Amino acid sequence: MPILSRIPKRVRVVEVGPRDGLQNEPTRVASHNKISFINALSEAGLRVIETTSFVSPKAVPQMADAGDVMLGITPYPGVCYPVLVPNERGYDRARESGCTAIALFTAASEQFSQKNVNATIAETFQRFAPIAQRAREDGVWVRGYVSTATDCPYSGHVDPEDAIRVAERLIELGCDEVALADTVGLATPKRLGELLERACARLPVTRLALHLHDTGGLALANVIIGLDYGVTTFDAAAGGLGGCPFAPGAPGNLATERLLKLLHGLGIDTGIDETRVADAIEQLHAAYPELGRRNAA
Amino acid sequence: MPILSRIPKRVRVVEVGPRDGLQNEPTRVASHNKISFINALSEAGLRVIETTSFVSPKAVPQMADAGDVMLGITPYPGVCYPVLVPNERGYDRARESGCTAIALFTAASEQFSQKNVNATIAETFQRFAPIAQRAREDGVWVRGYVSTATDCPYSGHVDPEDAIRVAERLIELGCDEVALADTVGLATPKRLGELLERACARLPVTRLALHLHDTGGLALANVIIGLDYGVTTFDAAAGGLGGCPFAPGAPGNLATERLLKLLHGLGIDTGIDETRVADAIEQLHAAYPELGRRNAA
Repeated sequence: MPILSRIPKRVRVVEVGPRDGLQNEPTRVASHNKISFINALSEAGLRVIETTSFVSPKAVPQMADAGDVMLGITPYPGVCYPVLVPNERGYDRARESGCTAIALFTAASEQFSQKNVNATIAETFQRFAPIAQRAREDGVWVRGYVSTATDCPYSGHVDPEDAIRVAERLIELGCDEVALADTVGLATPKRLGELLERACARLPVTRLALHLHDTGGLALANVIIGLDYGVTTFDAAAGGLGGCPFAPGAPGNLATERLLKLLHGLGIDTGIDETRVADAIEQLHAAYPELGRRNAA
Repeated sequence: MPILSRIPKRVRVVEVGPRDGLQNEPTRVASHNKISFINALSEAGLRVIETTSFVSPKAVPQMADAGDVMLGITPYPGVCYPVLVPNERGYDRARESGCTAIALFTAASEQFSQKNVNATIAETFQRFAPIAQRAREDGVWVRGYVSTATDCPYSGHVDPEDAIRVAERLIELGCDEVALADTVGLATPKRLGELLERACARLPVTRLALHLHDTGGLALANVIIGLDYGVTTFDAAAGGLGGCPFAPGAPGNLATERLLKLLHGLGIDTGIDETRVADAIEQLHAAYPELGRRNAA
């Protein structure tokens, strides 16, 4: 059966521009611009917007205003605003700011985990356990990220088995959704397919998301492979915000506009208005013309 | 069955940079640079290189040196060097230059045919009949182009039936291969799929090629749809040479490097060396830095 007859009819786009995108931009963006951007994205029809990160302000100055941003946005009915939470302190701050959805962050590659968060993968799970426990008690929605699910900037190709084991542990921990992330943006469709072939045999595909970067120029091709395996949740950053810290000058996050063009061009419904997404990023560019330009197609 | 298990194991890439690419570049390129470029492409492993066009030098000054280019290149064993031939006069010139493969050019849209070659589609076939007859007698390989197979810059979406009827007539005329061309580069995967669904039911897929432009940014997605229907021949232009005359500033021909990255990333064999294609275009850029820059990704 042709792929066009088999792919999902509806897809959920997770907007990660305000967090993953801005976090990797050298320009510091004012809180009120972030707030307007997030509100514009809500208006455009995005139903999941990763809003900010409650990391240490010293480690990531761009996210020092996490609480202000969270409290400043206009929550739209039906929109989920997850925030990144690295530890219990971050969880406390997130909850004080009214967050009802969080994201936890680990990796499939030991070397990446060590260099990125200075902890083994096992140690990240030890940190997560009490957070996941509290989230369950608080009725907080939890997303788990498996960074470097296909490629690691330090150790190269990642064994699909390593990524799947981490994904399984995140599900066991109570994550509502697990995002398999091609952090360096070098996954080939063939290798991503090998990962999904096995992942979908062992995990419910409805709980999997794909988080793709476009360093290698194959992010849209990889989306098609994801759709072929029944994945219905894809991450993207409006304006292609962000970059790849491991490949200076390379495009970073898959741009939401490009993802929408593909999905709509495949006849898939997203509920998102492409023009309004373009307006949202244009508004941000009016204040910061340099943002996301590394990703300009 | 996942698309990765179903797609062809081997694909033939038709390099159209020296003809379709350069024809749409405002910079006039010297014959010796064209010749070096074509030789470098042969060395890179391309097995079909559309070399030049025997159109009227007044109409297309860039192609005024068609004979010199054809006689100047080093023919590589096993490489096919088709040339565009608009009429019998062009066929004569092509044969005098030793050509053994030609391409004929018509369209699915009446309006495009009128504006592009000042003839109805029926009239283009009247012009082709004696050429096709002579080609058959001379043992010359013939490719037919169906321009505007999905979208017309003047009349919008094209009825797949119109494109297929023209393709059928080209096959009946004796074309060895028919290239369905998204001339304006705005085909969506869904509409391309609708065309291929019907085309492959009525024509042998082994004789079909896809000629994609990337104006809308979905050329690679469209290649995947083509592969899904069993298409094994795809056109591309090294360095993304060319442009879209109907969308100034927009990317034009799908770049050979991007096509190769996708095909190889899908695990498909092409016999082409990506690095050497990059070298071929780099060599041309050394003399003409501006070429193909509208397509830079």
